[in-house]
Amino acid sequence: MAPKYAPSLRSRLAPPLLFLQTGFIVIYALYTETDSNVQVVGKKFRDFYPEFQDVNVMVILGFGFLCTFLVRHGYSGSGFNLLVAAMATQWAVILNGIESWHYSGKIRINLKSLVEAEMCTASALISIGTVLGKTNPVQLILIALLEVTAFILNKWLLQTLLNIQPLSSIMLLHVFGTFFGLMLTWINYRKGSEQRFEKEKFDRKSGLFSMLGTLFLWMFWPSFNSVLAESPGRKSVAVCGTYLALAVSAVTAAAVSVLSNPKGKLNPILIQSCGLAGGVAVGVSMSVIQQPWEAMIIGFSAAVASTIGFQYLKIHMLLAFQCHDTCAILSTHGLPGLLGWLAHLFLQIKDSDDHTTAIRFAVFHICTLLVTITVSVSTGFLTGTLINLKIWRPPQNRKFLYNSQKKKKKHHDF
Amino acid sequence: MAPKYAPSLRSRLAPPLLFLQTGFIVIYALYTETDSNVQVVGKKFRDFYPEFQDVNVMVILGFGFLCTFLVRHGYSGSGFNLLVAAMATQWAVILNGIESWHYSGKIRINLKSLVEAEMCTASALISIGTVLGKTNPVQLILIALLEVTAFILNKWLLQTLLNIQPLSSIMLLHVFGTFFGLMLTWINYRKGSEQRFEKEKFDRKSGLFSMLGTLFLWMFWPSFNSVLAESPGRKSVAVCGTYLALAVSAVTAAAVSVLSNPKGKLNPILIQSCGLAGGVAVGVSMSVIQQPWEAMIIGFSAAVASTIGFQYLKIHMLLAFQCHDTCAILSTHGLPGLLGWLAHLFLQIKDSDDHTTAIRFAVFHICTLLVTITVSVSTGFLTGTLINLKIWRPPQNRKFLYNSQKKKKKHHDF
Amino acid sequence: MAPKYAPSLRSRLAPPLLFLQTGFIVIYALYTETDSNVQVVGKKFRDFYPEFQDVNVMVILGFGFLCTFLVRHGYSGSGFNLLVAAMATQWAVILNGIESWHYSGKIRINLKSLVEAEMCTASALISIGTVLGKTNPVQLILIALLEVTAFILNKWLLQTLLNIQPLSSIMLLHVFGTFFGLMLTWINYRKGSEQRFEKEKFDRKSGLFSMLGTLFLWMFWPSFNSVLAESPGRKSVAVCGTYLALAVSAVTAAAVSVLSNPKGKLNPILIQSCGLAGGVAVGVSMSVIQQPWEAMIIGFSAAVASTIGFQYLKIHMLLAFQCHDTCAILSTHGLPGLLGWLAHLFLQIKDSDDHTTAIRFAVFHICTLLVTITVSVSTGFLTGTLINLKIWRPPQNRKFLYNSQKKKKKHHDF
Repeated sequence: MAPKYAPSLRSRLAPPLLFLQTGFIVIYALYTETDSNVQVVGKKFRDFYPEFQDVNVMVILGFGFLCTFLVRHGYSGSGFNLLVAAMATQWAVILNGIESWHYSGKIRINLKSLVEAEMCTASALISIGTVLGKTNPVQLILIALLEVTAFILNKWLLQTLLNIQPLSSIMLLHVFGTFFGLMLTWINYRKGSEQRFEKEKFDRKSGLFSMLGTLFLWMFWPSFNSVLAESPGRKSVAVCGTYLALAVSAVTAAAVSVLSNPKGKLNPILIQSCGLAGGVAVGVSMSVIQQPWEAMIIGFSAAVASTIGFQYLKIHMLLAFQCHDTCAILSTHGLPGLLGWLAHLFLQIKDSDDHTTAIRFAVFHICTLLVTITVSVSTGFLTGTLINLKIWRPPQNRKFLYNSQKKKKKHHDF
Repeated sequence: MAPKYAPSLRSRLAPPLLFLQTGFIVIYALYTETDSNVQVVGKKFRDFYPEFQDVNVMVILGFGFLCTFLVRHGYSGSGFNLLVAAMATQWAVILNGIESWHYSGKIRINLKSLVEAEMCTASALISIGTVLGKTNPVQLILIALLEVTAFILNKWLLQTLLNIQPLSSIMLLHVFGTFFGLMLTWINYRKGSEQRFEKEKFDRKSGLFSMLGTLFLWMFWPSFNSVLAESPGRKSVAVCGTYLALAVSAVTAAAVSVLSNPKGKLNPILIQSCGLAGGVAVGVSMSVIQQPWEAMIIGFSAAVASTIGFQYLKIHMLLAFQCHDTCAILSTHGLPGLLGWLAHLFLQIKDSDDHTTAIRFAVFHICTLLVTITVSVSTGFLTGTLINLKIWRPPQNRKFLYNSQKKKKKHHDF
Repeated sequence: MAPKYAPSLRSRLAPPLLFLQTGFIVIYALYTETDSNVQVVGKKFRDFYPEFQDVNVMVILGFGFLCTFLVRHGYSGSGFNLLVAAMATQWAVILNGIESWHYSGKIRINLKSLVEAEMCTASALISIGTVLGKTNPVQLILIALLEVTAFILNKWLLQTLLNIQPLSSIMLLHVFGTFFGLMLTWINYRKGSEQRFEKEKFDRKSGLFSMLGTLFLWMFWPSFNSVLAESPGRKSVAVCGTYLALAVSAVTAAAVSVLSNPKGKLNPILIQSCGLAGGVAVGVSMSVIQQPWEAMIIGFSAAVASTIGFQYLKIHMLLAFQCHDTCAILSTHGLPGLLGWLAHLFLQIKDSDDHTTAIRFAVFHICTLLVTITVSVSTGFLTGTLINLKIWRPPQNRKFLYNSQKKKKKHHDF
């Protein structure tokens, strides 16, 4: 719920939403059709549906409740997340289908196109984690639509320039989302807000809602990493590998958090944030992982990097670079994503038969990362500049984040 | 938890529950058997199980947590919902099987009979939404059992008189449940309670639990609409259509709610209540939807109708017709259901080749609605009269809804 | 979150966790491999994955949130549950694979090995329910690892001595977990803590989180009982039987709780705790249940036993045997488990053709129970003695359970 004194959003939110939604419906009416190959669709449907639902739960519920730890933004945050996800997914289906529209005149709608769209949406939801509590819904929707566009542009660039398969480029969503989000929050930084961020505490009840979101992400991450794999054999490897990597991450995050805590306490918030690192890292390097222990080592390293990053990097980023990262996306998605990229490089080189192939692959792989970071940083910069305009009526400085905790116990008639 | 001073329910609740439960077990022992065609059951089981579980989650968790927004009735409400659902599902399996019992002497129990029973239960849970916080568990169980009976009677009437397939008549559950529930609450209305309804506010924590229920309904609604479809091709169309309609609904509900809010705020409760309208409307018209954009237009209109209804209709119904609808069922299920019925009529006529078929269909379709409304209104009237009897020890007037908010912060040893 | 004055766990928790986790990774690297029979794995994957995820949700979310009713231990409890489950599952995969390692030199990792490991973990989580709020994370991990070892030892003993199939012995997890846990808490009992247990109340918000955990267990219990069944026909019988037994349990628990409540109130906590009894009992006797009504009668009896046990047994155990059972595991898992064992015996004898087979089976069946109880009690005794050592820095007496309720409303920076 927006605070009572927040500026009215009627003229800023309702017309664009209605305009965009009507536009989407017109585009769908003109250019999409139900996938007509019933035999294939039917078979795929059966194999696909449970994993599709798991990904759906992650995007709508997992990301939605992850951000409820902000006491003041919990309830409205989960509602905004639904709104943003619903917009971004419709848009991503259209953008993902442009190629098919170019060749056959129609975009086919089936479970696969929906699940790919949801994964593009996930990258936008990751970016939004950096500016949570500092933006209004109009800005969130703008960010989501532009980020999805940039992400699909990046996918298209990687496919055209470097011949990277969509499966691999989609998995870079964590890296893309992180750098996009960091640029957003860096540009949106306002002087004098450091001391206010001190108040970013949460109480136990909010913590439990947030834990709920985390657990759904943790439980269904194997589906997220395996849903786009083609053969059932690969799916099975992806599921088992991701599961074990997540288990290792949770344990490692707990151990490292106790080690680095000045009082030697076990902080559940670190298990919660960094226990997902293994899923991120294994997702990025999924296509070359063969054995469970490879996934487990990746999960271990990712959790160590993520936990140390969470403890020391967030405050450092704020003070040194004036970059306030509400949900610590850099540590929870960025570092594990980069580590997964590194693991992919290393495993592929290890498996190569000769030097030429290995070097060739390394060059391609490094270019993939460079292109992704370039696109995400530049589009993130543009988006940040755009949403910083006064016409979107952003929340005032002094209303950032927790400024009305004292009102928390009242009942509101929202 | 019932308040401390509520009348004892021991003599009213325990004996009927034990009697009914024992009766159900005896009926199951005499007249049911496990489906013995292992080949068919096995194949169906694999295709069916994930969707069965999604519907189960919607009925038990989704509807159970939807009603937790009532601060005082949240915890006990979710418990009562489980109790009512467990009773009504057992009863619906029996009633749905009467035909098969008539022909073969046995009712076959398999996943399909359970999922059909759960959908009949859903219609009872919708009705209960109108009288929530104003009834005791004895009354809730009575309502559920009678409503399920009436709903299955309606299904049987439609099949016998108009040759309507069970798949189509089950989908009228939203319309049936709404009118049944409105009659219930109209009869149960007590003078002098208007000002008390003013207190129907909720705090953010309750809101998050309620949001959780809503999100589970939102995420799994595609399974609800597709579970009874026969061919995998139809299932795929149903899932994609429902998904897109829900996305459109969420966005439209947000836009319309900002437009109609006097302060131009975005109210998450409207996204929550009216974002489901698309799922309801598409469910009712599922069998004639071919293309995604048809579902999206239906979702758009349903969300507009539902949001406007939610903003203005609830208070109007209370003041003009003395009909207090706790969960605003009329707007969230009734209007979208009627709109889905209209869309079905329109799409079928558009697809008809000649006038005769079109008119013939229109007559049948209008009769279907008339029969459904007649049965639901009349049985709802009878049920309302029955549960209004003093022997069920209904909660006293002054204990309706929120009268003990002041006690909210104490710890109770329930 | 550990209270501020709790002893530092750095030296006790971090090194063992890191050591064990590194050890696990080394063992996985040396002795495990991905299941290479892609055809079989692929087919199994499709049939298996939805049920695997349901069991995963039960273990991680269900058990994790079940224990959140303890106001002070809710948030950290769900975090510790994830940590413990992640450790125990990795360990159980290794132990379950020892036999296959013995014969072929490698442990195969696939969905089936993961799901079996999660079920062994479930038995450890049940045991932990008895000492919840009275132990620190180091102790919890020790308990989980030792309990999983003991449970798999018991499985191996039953298979070697009595030729009991793993499917049947795994289902004894409820009985095993209960007796193991009771021994733990009996040894950990400390004088003078009776009056403190009086404070084991909970507020409604915590109750809703706990209800959430319960509902996930309730909804997915059919998957828990059917996941290890081989043929799809058996799976279907298991799912329908478990579903109906759970429905009967919920209704019966409500009825008996009203009957036994001195004020004739309906207590949702009894629906919550004892509504699961049917799932437990039917799980233990699954392999001989043919008809739905058999499952329903078992569910009815289990709920009656569980509800009466919950009302009277917990306090009796505390006063007479000085055995404080935080989550009333004896009533919710122990009694229904024993009742399921009895139902198995009875049904098998009823179906036997001649006396010799019946007696032979009865002897085997009684021996199975005796071995299980002997192993669980003796290993529980040893584990209890071990975790009682001062080197683990257990929480001090006066900090048991609810001693800092007064601090509940503050915001903590954990």
